[in-house]
Amino acid sequence: MNYAALWHEATQRYCYCLEPGRFLFRLQTAKDDIKSVTLHALDKYLPLKIRDTRKTIPMKWVASDGLRDYYEVELEFRVVCLRYCFELEDNAGNRVFFSNSGFTDTLPDDIERLFDCPQTLREEERFLAPDWASDKVIYQIFPSRFASHEEVEDKIWYQAPITANAALGGSLKGIIQQLPYIADLGVDVIYLTPIFYSNSCHKYDTIDYYTIDPTFGTTDDLVMLVDKAHTLGLRVILDGVFNHTSPEFFAFRDVVEKGENSRYKDWYYINKFPVCTIPMRHNYKCFSYFWGMPKVHLRCAAAADYFTEVALYWLRTAKVDGWRLDVADEISHGFWQYFRTQIKTEFPQALIVGEVWHHAPDFLQGDQWDSVMNYPFYRAVLDYAAEGTLTASGFLGVMGFQRGNTHNAAHHLMWNLIGSHDTARILHLCGENKDRQKLCAALQLLTPGMPMIYYGDEVAMTGAKDPDCRRGMLWDESRQDKDMLSWYKRLLRVRKEIPAITRGKTVAEEARDKDGLICVTRCLEDDEVTILFHAKEDTISLPALSGKRNLLTDNVFDGKVQGITALVLK
Amino acid sequence: MNYAALWHEATQRYCYCLEPGRFLFRLQTAKDDIKSVTLHALDKYLPLKIRDTRKTIPMKWVASDGLRDYYEVELEFRVVCLRYCFELEDNAGNRVFFSNSGFTDTLPDDIERLFDCPQTLREEERFLAPDWASDKVIYQIFPSRFASHEEVEDKIWYQAPITANAALGGSLKGIIQQLPYIADLGVDVIYLTPIFYSNSCHKYDTIDYYTIDPTFGTTDDLVMLVDKAHTLGLRVILDGVFNHTSPEFFAFRDVVEKGENSRYKDWYYINKFPVCTIPMRHNYKCFSYFWGMPKVHLRCAAAADYFTEVALYWLRTAKVDGWRLDVADEISHGFWQYFRTQIKTEFPQALIVGEVWHHAPDFLQGDQWDSVMNYPFYRAVLDYAAEGTLTASGFLGVMGFQRGNTHNAAHHLMWNLIGSHDTARILHLCGENKDRQKLCAALQLLTPGMPMIYYGDEVAMTGAKDPDCRRGMLWDESRQDKDMLSWYKRLLRVRKEIPAITRGKTVAEEARDKDGLICVTRCLEDDEVTILFHAKEDTISLPALSGKRNLLTDNVFDGKVQGITALVLK
Repeated sequence: MNYAALWHEATQRYCYCLEPGRFLFRLQTAKDDIKSVTLHALDKYLPLKIRDTRKTIPMKWVASDGLRDYYEVELEFRVVCLRYCFELEDNAGNRVFFSNSGFTDTLPDDIERLFDCPQTLREEERFLAPDWASDKVIYQIFPSRFASHEEVEDKIWYQAPITANAALGGSLKGIIQQLPYIADLGVDVIYLTPIFYSNSCHKYDTIDYYTIDPTFGTTDDLVMLVDKAHTLGLRVILDGVFNHTSPEFFAFRDVVEKGENSRYKDWYYINKFPVCTIPMRHNYKCFSYFWGMPKVHLRCAAAADYFTEVALYWLRTAKVDGWRLDVADEISHGFWQYFRTQIKTEFPQALIVGEVWHHAPDFLQGDQWDSVMNYPFYRAVLDYAAEGTLTASGFLGVMGFQRGNTHNAAHHLMWNLIGSHDTARILHLCGENKDRQKLCAALQLLTPGMPMIYYGDEVAMTGAKDPDCRRGMLWDESRQDKDMLSWYKRLLRVRKEIPAITRGKTVAEEARDKDGLICVTRCLEDDEVTILFHAKEDTISLPALSGKRNLLTDNVFDGKVQGITALVLK
Repeated sequence: MNYAALWHEATQRYCYCLEPGRFLFRLQTAKDDIKSVTLHALDKYLPLKIRDTRKTIPMKWVASDGLRDYYEVELEFRVVCLRYCFELEDNAGNRVFFSNSGFTDTLPDDIERLFDCPQTLREEERFLAPDWASDKVIYQIFPSRFASHEEVEDKIWYQAPITANAALGGSLKGIIQQLPYIADLGVDVIYLTPIFYSNSCHKYDTIDYYTIDPTFGTTDDLVMLVDKAHTLGLRVILDGVFNHTSPEFFAFRDVVEKGENSRYKDWYYINKFPVCTIPMRHNYKCFSYFWGMPKVHLRCAAAADYFTEVALYWLRTAKVDGWRLDVADEISHGFWQYFRTQIKTEFPQALIVGEVWHHAPDFLQGDQWDSVMNYPFYRAVLDYAAEGTLTASGFLGVMGFQRGNTHNAAHHLMWNLIGSHDTARILHLCGENKDRQKLCAALQLLTPGMPMIYYGDEVAMTGAKDPDCRRGMLWDESRQDKDMLSWYKRLLRVRKEIPAITRGKTVAEEARDKDGLICVTRCLEDDEVTILFHAKEDTISLPALSGKRNLLTDNVFDGKVQGITALVLK
């Protein structure tokens, strides 16, 4: 048995309350090392001689990351407090018990040596995510470039490559006009990058959080947008840039003007007064090295309150459905705990999503965010499907690592993206190979979680990295790739029609690295679906599956997977 | 290389800010698997072509738990945000890089594939512990049984076994009278179990948090106690029982009386109104199954404020030095985060210590407690030195696990105990074998951390578990074991005189399981000290060390360790 790889702690990372009387336990072992895992549990406080509360329940394999296996069990147990340990049997027949006292040959008699689960008594720590969000599909809009409600000359709107601050005239009214298009695609949620007053095109340097940028429209426009979206069954998420402001934001201006006498001096990280705003000689902390984005000091209670109030204001005023939070991992856990408490007390159904580019389980414990922009997923798709540098099993390994190391409440909320305003377009990264983009889109849309489609990908927009990835949306139908559009629509329809795709239990999962093939079978009640991803140009035979219907083409599968593609067989 | 056992995440558990510009990284590997680990780091935001910020620094082995090795490095780096990865070489000469993208043969070119350390930008998350507390020695007092300021008949004071509520007459004035005894022992901190108004002897069911129990004295007595203690260089820690109250506490009485109309109804977990207080038919959540200890609902903001205010009140009024928190792991992380913020804002030097009986790194991240009552240490000492069921290497393994899995800021603050009011006396658990108790005391007092001596252990008091472990302190000199007392005093003096014992770097550590021998060498600047623990009855030879002076006896070591004992050689 690979003892060094066996890992469990009685912390909320590995053991938590799902609802009063129901708990989840997770254990990590070396891959293919263990034959069976059993959980032994009993009441911490009730002596056995008064009542024998002991329970024994087998744990189930739930994921592998290529190196480790993850086992889980949900335990129903109405007790004051739990004690527990694991019984493991390896493939060689060795049997050990794993408790707070390490590894022993027998179940410890002294129950104080077991793991302790006081989480039974800390029900308020439960991860309560919004009910509506699981597996919903997001459509990301960069408002200055998505749609204008006024006539714009083609040579302006479709200019490419494009410069960072090129003004195309995108507006909220423009978005409102296109809501039927968005709803018709089959997505569920619109995420707008920042819309508040700012001099930049991207608006990640906010001057006034209470004013819609005048080039985008007004508060009334936003209210109308959200209202119409809701009518069409679409939710709306805004982008909260609370890590930094524009230097023209009133508080920073006050600090520049009044120095140490400013009542806002603690809202920023000022190294020295007077404040110097000369680029590269600036003497305050910024986002990155951008002097034009002074970092907010959110340990300052007044600043924390101000930005939390901004978030509450738009939830109240425009009835938006949540916030995506910019550069969220550069803001402390303490602020996010406060932020969540304030938001969820008034709006328990508001979705809170952090921008973070790396694996960040510490923000997803139920006390901070509901979800993250899933860039590790993005990289895995890119490597496996766009660039071919990651094997099929490597891709499944990344998925397994996420499944095994993320709180289960967040599993169906992860914002699985294959591109954003901060990356080159997926088609560009696929070397303009549309089959590869189609495979990437299939990986995204046939996986549990909240896939995020970057506006225009569905009509095969291309573009190198920022600013070129932010071109004007292709509204001219002659410029749209209708084949790509119908692929996206088909994927979205199949995803919605076959709940086994997102909610099914994975009953089989196979990676054939030589063939670049992933084959996953998911089951929900009597419904079984087999999903194939093929990342190589050649043709391979899968005779065992022939005769099934491919839901992405409506053809009967002839047992041959031809070239780079994805299939949903039933 | 045992890849499955290699573990690091860019979370604050494994990577944190020590002070602006200085960071700690920790990595976990299989034991004896790795020859060298190197950290590669660079600025996240500054492109290499503008400035080459790359740094490379070797990591050092810091601990082993018998299965895993722990490596650490402190990195000085003044950048906006860090990216990093590890380079590992195993004993077979295999070399790999470990980053956010897993294991690769070469250093990833794409720096987005490295680990990300936004903790550089979250300096407010630093673990700021009190300056005064590291390695200080605690003396635990159970006030009703420690000292009376009035004459008490011997047959009452020294009754044994003793019943739970036997009234001996212990008081704060009694403790004041004995402060010179405590100071003379050589300890640094007094920890008093609860002293507030309650009808029980242990007072863990508080009726009034603002009133000193009348049998113990008055607020003035406490103020005087703390004042005199401070004069003698002693700190004072109180016991905060905020998990539950007495049913006679005003808020609970109000809920019983007014039911749903009580303004305090949310302060408790009431299943149903009216409240029923009939034992075993009670309909509210309690501590354990004790109907007489209704559990407080600290998610209720008014209740959270009330108990936090209690803690602040006694810090202000009596100038106590901190709080030990009862059943602290059954109270949510959210409350403790709030509690710490409130306490530390006004009293940054107040020590916050949680009672928890198991490994609990999630409470020791810098946002909740400073320390814990270290029961895993207690069990390891018991198993190795009192009962002989744990090998010498097993004992070192437990110590290594703690070192490798606890935040470094807490390492010198862990309350290392070998007994408390909640356990049988150490002498009793040693089967009345005083050599074994001496060895236990040596393990406790020659280890980094805050050793906690339970009152009377130093004069060899015995007693089975609660209530027998709470007998009247042996003040009658004829009842005291003077030999044990001088052993404790000697250990305390040596601990204080030789800072290498607690602050030294461990330069050698050996366990000989056959002999029950642990041999540790610690070094601080030019000062080197070798500490021996021997848990078996026989005599063993260690000729290489002969000629050194044993600081615990002042004899020159003749190369023979005789029977169960401990030595400090220099």
